[in-house]
Amino acid sequence: MASSHPDSKLYPDATGAAAKMVAEHSKEEDLKLYSAWFCPFVQRVLLVLLEKSIPFQYIEVNPYHKPRSLLDLNPRGLVPTLEYASKPLYESTVICEFLEEAYPSTKKLRPDDPYTRAKSRIWSDFVTSRIIPAFHRFLQYQSQGDGEEGLTKVREEFLGTLKEFTKEMDPEGPFFFGKDIGMVDLILAPWAVRLWVFEEFKGGLKVPEDEQVWKRWAKWLNAIKERPSVVETTSESEHYLPIYKRYADDTAQSELAKATRTGRGVP
Amino acid sequence: MASSHPDSKLYPDATGAAAKMVAEHSKEEDLKLYSAWFCPFVQRVLLVLLEKSIPFQYIEVNPYHKPRSLLDLNPRGLVPTLEYASKPLYESTVICEFLEEAYPSTKKLRPDDPYTRAKSRIWSDFVTSRIIPAFHRFLQYQSQGDGEEGLTKVREEFLGTLKEFTKEMDPEGPFFFGKDIGMVDLILAPWAVRLWVFEEFKGGLKVPEDEQVWKRWAKWLNAIKERPSVVETTSESEHYLPIYKRYADDTAQSELAKATRTGRGVP
Repeated sequence: MASSHPDSKLYPDATGAAAKMVAEHSKEEDLKLYSAWFCPFVQRVLLVLLEKSIPFQYIEVNPYHKPRSLLDLNPRGLVPTLEYASKPLYESTVICEFLEEAYPSTKKLRPDDPYTRAKSRIWSDFVTSRIIPAFHRFLQYQSQGDGEEGLTKVREEFLGTLKEFTKEMDPEGPFFFGKDIGMVDLILAPWAVRLWVFEEFKGGLKVPEDEQVWKRWAKWLNAIKERPSVVETTSESEHYLPIYKRYADDTAQSELAKATRTGRGVP
Repeated sequence: MASSHPDSKLYPDATGAAAKMVAEHSKEEDLKLYSAWFCPFVQRVLLVLLEKSIPFQYIEVNPYHKPRSLLDLNPRGLVPTLEYASKPLYESTVICEFLEEAYPSTKKLRPDDPYTRAKSRIWSDFVTSRIIPAFHRFLQYQSQGDGEEGLTKVREEFLGTLKEFTKEMDPEGPFFFGKDIGMVDLILAPWAVRLWVFEEFKGGLKVPEDEQVWKRWAKWLNAIKERPSVVETTSESEHYLPIYKRYADDTAQSELAKATRTGRGVP
């Protein structure tokens, strides 16, 4: 029953800076993004749309009362779903890649050279296949009665993925490939701006700040947090809080939460 | 100890039609593919290279005595690793995408139109994220003492993924997008030509052949099996047999075998 679903009490709309962005993208456009204000996979697509200044219509989807227009496009009703020329596209990374190719006259987010572009894909894949699963194993971790040991292990694993990623960055930065923001940065940004959840629920991230690699990470993270597109797609923390509490208690019912619970990766 | 590793008795080189292909690609070339004759992820890359007629050098890697030249390029020493302009690329899907972009004057394997190209990526991703994990859960399944019930379940799950894939195919075919072979076809082909392992070890695939969707599947499968690039990259079954027996007994030690055992997807 949708109405008794434990996730169903979530706040209905974007707030703060994101509310303004939503209002600015509420008028009818051919290109439509079916969204959920709290969803990091949606935020990826929003970041690409805003960075490339592509006109689009934002449509907030109540996950327990999905609009018919969405279900007609995508029977699973998942967000993000992009409607392009009355046809559906889904999977956030596929949509981001599509926007890069379908709007070639907008700002480029992948490097021009095929080899560097392949590197960009490797590290985008690394975000989805390694960093996000480790983020969720840490966030959803429940004590096994062994004190801090298990928690320390999942924290270290998560920090290990961030370290591996950071070592591949351009040394100067601030972004992954240098002074310009690109796809790799945007693919990770939604989780980067949610790192406060570990301070809230899991005893902190405990980044060893004095190491050189973590200084480079801090530089990247600051550049991401200050980026207008990131600011404009982020709601007020207080409304994310109850959602992430369910993850932290390991009672969330999203596809990703369930996949993490059964030991799988991003579904 | 590498020499006592249970996987270490594998046959050292490609055989049959693949031996001829290897011999034809043994001379020095700038573009080098570090390979293992039995590896389906390597076969993906070989298929793309052959379909696009890109000159390359085939280098067989003994996984227990990895050459220094490979370890210098890719410290994890995994195959496939592509050496391009003395730089490494790995992850089969990233390499395939790279070859498509770096050799634009060769045969195109992705559709021209960005929307159809995005669909091509969705269904390529589906192969890696859904079909291959289901293939391995079926192959590595060990009876839980419940008779055929558990086996039937993992078989049905695997067939379900093939059915979902097949429903998206162009109705005429024979290939996914119509008469021309493309990336989606090549991404799945290595597992399609290994389906005999289920007849050998798991009581058969038991495709309900009278359904329309399975006729379309059979048409695709025949076209794949007859494709010269597929034939030329396939060794003799008898040499795959002991490798797949270890998977079927769930004692294989590859990264994919271990990921499947712990409930994870393609690592």
